Amino acid sequence: MWPVRIRIDLSYDGTEFSGWAKQPGRRTVQGELEAACDRILRLTEPARLTVAGRTDAGVHARAQVAHLDLPATAWEAVPGRSDLAPEIALTRRLNAILPRDIAVIATTSAPEGFDARFSALWREYSYRLTFTRDPLDRHFALTHEPVDLGRLNEATQVLLGERDFTAFCKARPGATAIRTLQEFRWEPWRGETGANGARAWVRADAFCHNMVRSLVGATLAVGTGRRTVQWLREVAASEQRSSQVQVAPAHPLILEGVGYPQASELGARARQARAVRTLPGNVD
Amino acid sequence: MWPVRIRIDLSYDGTEFSGWAKQPGRRTVQGELEAACDRILRLTEPARLTVAGRTDAGVHARAQVAHLDLPATAWEAVPGRSDLAPEIALTRRLNAILPRDIAVIATTSAPEGFDARFSALWREYSYRLTFTRDPLDRHFALTHEPVDLGRLNEATQVLLGERDFTAFCKARPGATAIRTLQEFRWEPWRGETGANGARAWVRADAFCHNMVRSLVGATLAVGTGRRTVQWLREVAASEQRSSQVQVAPAHPLILEGVGYPQASELGARARQARAVRTLPGNVD
Repeated sequence: MWPVRIRIDLSYDGTEFSGWAKQPGRRTVQGELEAACDRILRLTEPARLTVAGRTDAGVHARAQVAHLDLPATAWEAVPGRSDLAPEIALTRRLNAILPRDIAVIATTSAPEGFDARFSALWREYSYRLTFTRDPLDRHFALTHEPVDLGRLNEATQVLLGERDFTAFCKARPGATAIRTLQEFRWEPWRGETGANGARAWVRADAFCHNMVRSLVGATLAVGTGRRTVQWLREVAASEQRSSQVQVAPAHPLILEGVGYPQASELGARARQARAVRTLPGNVD
Repeated sequence: MWPVRIRIDLSYDGTEFSGWAKQPGRRTVQGELEAACDRILRLTEPARLTVAGRTDAGVHARAQVAHLDLPATAWEAVPGRSDLAPEIALTRRLNAILPRDIAVIATTSAPEGFDARFSALWREYSYRLTFTRDPLDRHFALTHEPVDLGRLNEATQVLLGERDFTAFCKARPGATAIRTLQEFRWEPWRGETGANGARAWVRADAFCHNMVRSLVGATLAVGTGRRTVQWLREVAASEQRSSQVQVAPAHPLILEGVGYPQASELGARARQARAVRTLPGNVD
């Protein structure tokens, strides 16, 4: 019935969206993209997208990935009367009707076993600060007091690796917060007008809700000297969400990319990602 | 009475401004900045700014320059009770009350003979295109069909040097349109999401109204093949504003910088810039 899975690579400016996930009465990326698919593909059932990173309200994506299952006939019918391949035709037709704050980069027929959410090996986000305000980067950077990069990176070291990130997550009942933080570093960066600043790169196999912004907020507390590295160690070890961790604002956060394994390993990766995860020491 | 001239370097996002120049009932950069100066400096007469580049509605500035004349007592009183130099104190206090789409980069006591408008040797603008749309650059780039850079730069060559730019200007009665176009080149450029595109750099001793956007529009007509280089030569030679030249949209235009001579040459430069200009062949 649904034999073709389409991978959609897209980018968006999250400023005027209530996040990725469809919500009644709200303007969302999923809502806009599903409506555009419905209009172009004329499906008997509404299009339903699965996404790699469910970004929050105000968060942007430079390279987001979603998938959509389609009847093969609908996919083959996309080009209409032109000679285009369905990949090119669908990309063009989506961009012709989508609002200007979403752009489809590519649509492709996905390999066997591909799942935008469960096949992903990692998600990477960036977060930008400027130490004086920068009008040309105000949509994508936070104006913040100057922060010591050495202290910030001392803090990020505490958090790397596989651990339970419950302290940094908005809880979802029955869901684990065990994740592997593969990369977290702050580097010097300049805004569009040359304002001094810093940019964080944060990569994990997956993130739970609010996790990137909580990690950013926690390391900023250490970087500015309001908190110590020891405080961060204690917070990270706690088994409840910490009220001492400030969730950093959404607008400087960009989903930079999503990594997938080679086609031959897609199915195995999805089975692994779907399994309930425990830390080595835990027995459930 | 007005013995101190203050140079103000600033940047702004022009999206939500009706341009630089103050207009009753409109939100303008000059209006916001003068109001902020009035509030901080408590002058007996309202602050009156002179600017290097009177940007149009929607045009941005990475590095704009303006000046303001002040009684020495007002300048010295800026720091209030703190130990700061007036330069630092005024910059901070302006940024504390200005809206987030304007930032003061620096305020300095200007050297003798400095005039933000008449001392300037050149103004430089950039103009950005992306050939597929780029949601993260939509405030600062125009989505445009792909253009051949070779043809664009063939077109820009026609326009370089000192000439009468009447064909590309919105006329101001009694004003000359003789300018020296010092630089005009298109180069490959990529948007924030990696979209292929092009960026123009346009530098002249001064620009008349609508000139940069008309030059961009005229070279784009040649670059896309709608017009020929010969057409551009004929347009450039005309003595009236050409209705065949499309003024390109404002939002991809950024004032990148303004150049001034060394302090010792400021007065001479201002006298030269104020003089009515004619081309060598003309006798008025």
